[in-house]
Amino acid sequence: MDRRQFLAVGGLAAASPVLAQSTGGDVHDADAALFREVNFIHDGLGLSPREYAAALHEATTRRDLPADNYSNGGVIEELEAAFARKLGKQAAMFVPTGTLANHIALRKLAGPDRRVLVQAESHFYADSGDAGGVLSDLNLVPLAEGRSTITLDEVNDWVERSAGGRVPMKVGVLSIESPVRRRDHEMVDFDELQRVCRRAREQGIRLHLDGARLFNLPYHSGHGVQEYAAMFDTVFVSLWKHFNGASGAILAGDAAFIEGLYHTRRMFGGSLPQAWPVAAVAAQYVDSYEADYARAWQVTDRVIALLKQDRRFKVRKVPMGTSRFFLSVAGVDGAALRERARSRGVLLPRPNPDSGEYAMQVNPSVLRASPEVIAQSLLAAAKG
Amino acid sequence: MDRRQFLAVGGLAAASPVLAQSTGGDVHDADAALFREVNFIHDGLGLSPREYAAALHEATTRRDLPADNYSNGGVIEELEAAFARKLGKQAAMFVPTGTLANHIALRKLAGPDRRVLVQAESHFYADSGDAGGVLSDLNLVPLAEGRSTITLDEVNDWVERSAGGRVPMKVGVLSIESPVRRRDHEMVDFDELQRVCRRAREQGIRLHLDGARLFNLPYHSGHGVQEYAAMFDTVFVSLWKHFNGASGAILAGDAAFIEGLYHTRRMFGGSLPQAWPVAAVAAQYVDSYEADYARAWQVTDRVIALLKQDRRFKVRKVPMGTSRFFLSVAGVDGAALRERARSRGVLLPRPNPDSGEYAMQVNPSVLRASPEVIAQSLLAAAKG
Amino acid sequence: MDRRQFLAVGGLAAASPVLAQSTGGDVHDADAALFREVNFIHDGLGLSPREYAAALHEATTRRDLPADNYSNGGVIEELEAAFARKLGKQAAMFVPTGTLANHIALRKLAGPDRRVLVQAESHFYADSGDAGGVLSDLNLVPLAEGRSTITLDEVNDWVERSAGGRVPMKVGVLSIESPVRRRDHEMVDFDELQRVCRRAREQGIRLHLDGARLFNLPYHSGHGVQEYAAMFDTVFVSLWKHFNGASGAILAGDAAFIEGLYHTRRMFGGSLPQAWPVAAVAAQYVDSYEADYARAWQVTDRVIALLKQDRRFKVRKVPMGTSRFFLSVAGVDGAALRERARSRGVLLPRPNPDSGEYAMQVNPSVLRASPEVIAQSLLAAAKG
Amino acid sequence: MDRRQFLAVGGLAAASPVLAQSTGGDVHDADAALFREVNFIHDGLGLSPREYAAALHEATTRRDLPADNYSNGGVIEELEAAFARKLGKQAAMFVPTGTLANHIALRKLAGPDRRVLVQAESHFYADSGDAGGVLSDLNLVPLAEGRSTITLDEVNDWVERSAGGRVPMKVGVLSIESPVRRRDHEMVDFDELQRVCRRAREQGIRLHLDGARLFNLPYHSGHGVQEYAAMFDTVFVSLWKHFNGASGAILAGDAAFIEGLYHTRRMFGGSLPQAWPVAAVAAQYVDSYEADYARAWQVTDRVIALLKQDRRFKVRKVPMGTSRFFLSVAGVDGAALRERARSRGVLLPRPNPDSGEYAMQVNPSVLRASPEVIAQSLLAAAKG
Repeated sequence: MDRRQFLAVGGLAAASPVLAQSTGGDVHDADAALFREVNFIHDGLGLSPREYAAALHEATTRRDLPADNYSNGGVIEELEAAFARKLGKQAAMFVPTGTLANHIALRKLAGPDRRVLVQAESHFYADSGDAGGVLSDLNLVPLAEGRSTITLDEVNDWVERSAGGRVPMKVGVLSIESPVRRRDHEMVDFDELQRVCRRAREQGIRLHLDGARLFNLPYHSGHGVQEYAAMFDTVFVSLWKHFNGASGAILAGDAAFIEGLYHTRRMFGGSLPQAWPVAAVAAQYVDSYEADYARAWQVTDRVIALLKQDRRFKVRKVPMGTSRFFLSVAGVDGAALRERARSRGVLLPRPNPDSGEYAMQVNPSVLRASPEVIAQSLLAAAKG
Repeated sequence: MDRRQFLAVGGLAAASPVLAQSTGGDVHDADAALFREVNFIHDGLGLSPREYAAALHEATTRRDLPADNYSNGGVIEELEAAFARKLGKQAAMFVPTGTLANHIALRKLAGPDRRVLVQAESHFYADSGDAGGVLSDLNLVPLAEGRSTITLDEVNDWVERSAGGRVPMKVGVLSIESPVRRRDHEMVDFDELQRVCRRAREQGIRLHLDGARLFNLPYHSGHGVQEYAAMFDTVFVSLWKHFNGASGAILAGDAAFIEGLYHTRRMFGGSLPQAWPVAAVAAQYVDSYEADYARAWQVTDRVIALLKQDRRFKVRKVPMGTSRFFLSVAGVDGAALRERARSRGVLLPRPNPDSGEYAMQVNPSVLRASPEVIAQSLLAAAKG
Repeated sequence: MDRRQFLAVGGLAAASPVLAQSTGGDVHDADAALFREVNFIHDGLGLSPREYAAALHEATTRRDLPADNYSNGGVIEELEAAFARKLGKQAAMFVPTGTLANHIALRKLAGPDRRVLVQAESHFYADSGDAGGVLSDLNLVPLAEGRSTITLDEVNDWVERSAGGRVPMKVGVLSIESPVRRRDHEMVDFDELQRVCRRAREQGIRLHLDGARLFNLPYHSGHGVQEYAAMFDTVFVSLWKHFNGASGAILAGDAAFIEGLYHTRRMFGGSLPQAWPVAAVAAQYVDSYEADYARAWQVTDRVIALLKQDRRFKVRKVPMGTSRFFLSVAGVDGAALRERARSRGVLLPRPNPDSGEYAMQVNPSVLRASPEVIAQSLLAAAKG
Repeated sequence: MDRRQFLAVGGLAAASPVLAQSTGGDVHDADAALFREVNFIHDGLGLSPREYAAALHEATTRRDLPADNYSNGGVIEELEAAFARKLGKQAAMFVPTGTLANHIALRKLAGPDRRVLVQAESHFYADSGDAGGVLSDLNLVPLAEGRSTITLDEVNDWVERSAGGRVPMKVGVLSIESPVRRRDHEMVDFDELQRVCRRAREQGIRLHLDGARLFNLPYHSGHGVQEYAAMFDTVFVSLWKHFNGASGAILAGDAAFIEGLYHTRRMFGGSLPQAWPVAAVAAQYVDSYEADYARAWQVTDRVIALLKQDRRFKVRKVPMGTSRFFLSVAGVDGAALRERARSRGVLLPRPNPDSGEYAMQVNPSVLRASPEVIAQSLLAAAKG
């Protein structure tokens, strides 16, 4: 069983519904049904516990998998090295969650300058319980409210404001999330990002990239992950969103920044005694993800074209978007559609209760079937 | 020597320049020259060390002034009681600076909900070195950027945003400064303030008023200090801005809030072993300030009317303003004008280097001379 | 494959060396060699990655294992309920590490009283990078330096000292670790513990038990885990030390204490998106551990008795000890002994470089072989 | 009126009781009675508000006293320079309280190493509401419990312990208070202090001296204030204890340490808008204090000798003591004795309710009368 097996099964290219072959109930049939579903819900394959455990088990039988010791060494160290290489950074550290990866990065980058500019819509600002202020003495200033891109004007304004208080404050860090999850995975505008980063550098402001889904950017922006990473001092990438780990994140930066940082991870209670069970599966997806994602969009675009031939199907793409598009299916009950699609091996998200739209997530699970099979499954599901 | 003496000297009502009578150099002449200057610079009388010490000395000879013990008891307790009464609050505590008064209030009001809405232009947000985040685990959210009034929409938006994070946050406190020093002492719009406070109450959000210059509001807004104070859980008022203390602030609130709070003051290093020397002078201005300020504006308006008869003098008032107006004097060198006015006993601020305007501060020192004398002094100074 | 299979394989009761049967190299032989080793190193079975993944895989095939969602629900919720029941507490929460479990407990228990009494030798005080002070505003007071048991006198002294400062401090929490890892797993004296806890209760001091290895206490002290847990407001138990999870901890307490606490876990970056891969294996050991541990000591005592017949073997037990005893083997090179024992399926710790003693850890892996086989393996290893 | 006038009035050298001359009630009589009392209660002269205000007033008439601006410049800057010189340090900063001076020093000295060794009996540890942990992320480790001198062994032990945790901690600062107020002003042993400081330096540990009453040490230890100060990176000296300010402290250190530190002072709310009224009086005592204190002990020793001639009077000195001795007066009611002494111009502390001893504080107020007059006053008071 290799990575291909986890993605797509050749036989599905047949005109049969996605899961046609696998309807049995016993263990072997169950095994046969693994790694088959196409989902438009997750950032990745959305492995079930059974699939995940099978993949993990296989990883331990393929070779003598070296365990980590309190999240140091072993397969964790291998992953760190692989991501450092991919990102063009000197070093990297595993962190059990993205929340902690962002937090540790900002905490250390800030040094004595605790004022940190962030997007109001960013995950760290909006979803971490104000961890930066509550635990790490940071003043997070939320910018770009209701938007994805912090502008050069905003940066200039806040640098000046900060310097103009009775206690002049230096902005310590500028943190950027791209794509922005809370904005339907919209990208930050690349040109403005370059200007903003250049200005920050001039001001001695350190730069952090929340690149949880960084590996989706190149397909849409034309700029490679290393090109992005080079603009920042530190970069966080999620291990579970695209790479199908159960949990975990990579924080990459200079060797001097990463050195000894595992002490901070432990202080936060983030040094899992053994981390390999949540991260080892991710290793096999690192090298192929970008190509798989590109192919996933090619398949998806073909699926969309096929669906559009049915006038009930409408598709809306997000300007500056990445992995999300919106689907609406006129005149079809959402719950019923989802249930019928599911029975054909295609998982749909819940439709938005107001607009009726499905926020469709594109990921490599679409490579498990041909565009025709997927489209056919959805059209059939719409028919009832 | 009573309070009147510190404000205005009857003889000045004559047509002579403000300080005509006092040109000698020896101690007695010097004494005669005390408490004479009219200033358009300070929030209060701008007492010189000599004046301040004379006033303090006099306060200790008038009666057996009871000292405080680590900022508790004695004349400090008297001041606390006087302000609690004035503000219609159950209790009050002396704090050595307004920065600390605001900080202690927000820290305690927030309780477990560390998200605090503030004005971006407020003193505590802009001028305290991010103390709230750095020392007290608060996440201060700066609203109303470039404006004075936080709107109901902003409050609603941030209540909702905060509740919508993956870690739902309750906004703990809403802090309002009015008038806003960084906005030329502009008032917060009263009607919007009422709506905002009502909404906050409904949401269980606690309310703090940075009323450093609260006692200036009634003259301009028509709403009394108690009317303002009643909308908030806690109110800070400065002792030195209007009341001519050397330093210090009053923090007023419920008895339950104030009780034991002096321990927090001490933890911050804010319990002066003896505070009375910075605060005792303020006592004598508490009761009369509001009336004095109103009269000060009457005098000032008359001065303005007289000045306008000279076409070189132009006056610009701040919409929603309080103690500040802008004066420009066409064709007269700023440094020379200030020097000549000073020699006539009228102190002017430095003109704005770009606009040439003088940001004139209205305070009871104008009661030390008649409007005619003050206007005459300025007209003469403009003449050269 | 059930739990028994992971512990001991009947065939080992034969006189053959522990691993006699399993010398092959192919996958099936490798599988045959799994779950065979006896270790005197770990707190538990010391599963290898291959063993761990096999156990996890089996758990997902035995039933449709429900995944958790950000560490809430699914198999995690089942584990929480199981431990709450075992400990006689109303509720429990999974936390990814013991460091964080202790931290979250102390942080919340302390409330406004940030002074916390701890053992100087405790794991949280000594090994967490001062997390309590650095992140959570706690003042951890290290008591019982060089000992395991905080005495009633010490508690009384510090309650009094704390109350007698110029800012009177209430001690907020008393935290006790038992057994104490840094003291060779020595128990805290039970009678003194009772007195200390009673006194703390009288003073309104909250109580936390770092019971990472709590389930070892009953066999040695005669007091059940619920008897211990009842003395404390909150109890932490490790999932990986005895229960063979890869990571994780349980924090148990009142329903009111646990409710909403997952928000704090997330704020710390401790809410793994999927935690089940590190915790699911632990579930199968919860019910049997205490009995297994008791039997493990019975086997071990028999092994000791057999070893002592060889005069080179000497055993030293720890007074008030739990899972550790010290073994010395006169005249035998440590590295060689370990290597020969290992080849017979018995893992020994590195000897202390000064004393030459092996700090032997007793755990249920000894149940995988008979005492005679284990003793024989060691005696043979000592022979060379 | 010069400093001498504030200390002793020549006429008192006569055999008359201390205050014999001043029994009137009107203002002039009141003035005559100022600066006369001898107290055995305070660290300094214990100026009444009236005395303090008179001294402050006089300071403003003697010269054109330059005010400070938010605690920078003017007479404050002069004081800073004077103390820097006295202490042999490059720079110094005024801080409104000793609590804050210690706090700011430790906070900055610690840098990234938040573990700080302090005396359990020290003022900062015992009396500041755990400010270091609560506000500044410090882990204060209380040593020398029940003693004054931290030993080299303790330092070595904790350096080692700290390095031996799973997160190795460097001790960041060693803070020493001497004399120790809570230990009856006992000195720290000088030789051990030298060893301890040398060891700390070798370890890269920064050193802070809480020398609130540093200027009392040379008379007792034979080591000058600069000799002490040279052992430490930073030194705090109180302005009000010996130097009769109303409040305030000096924090001295390297120019690089002090530079910009006023921003931290402001962040804490410690930058009084005008500090001169609490500090200006202190200036006149800086140069003479050491000599005055030495003479005060000479007078006191003579007083003691005279008292001992009456067998009811017993004196107990503190080994390694400084400004305190204990007096007991057999068979005389404490309240009555205090009242009668007070009427003769000698203020006694309240006797200890258990031992009956008076904890007598030696300070320059004894220079206001001859030893004979003081002794006579006490003997007469004992007679009834």
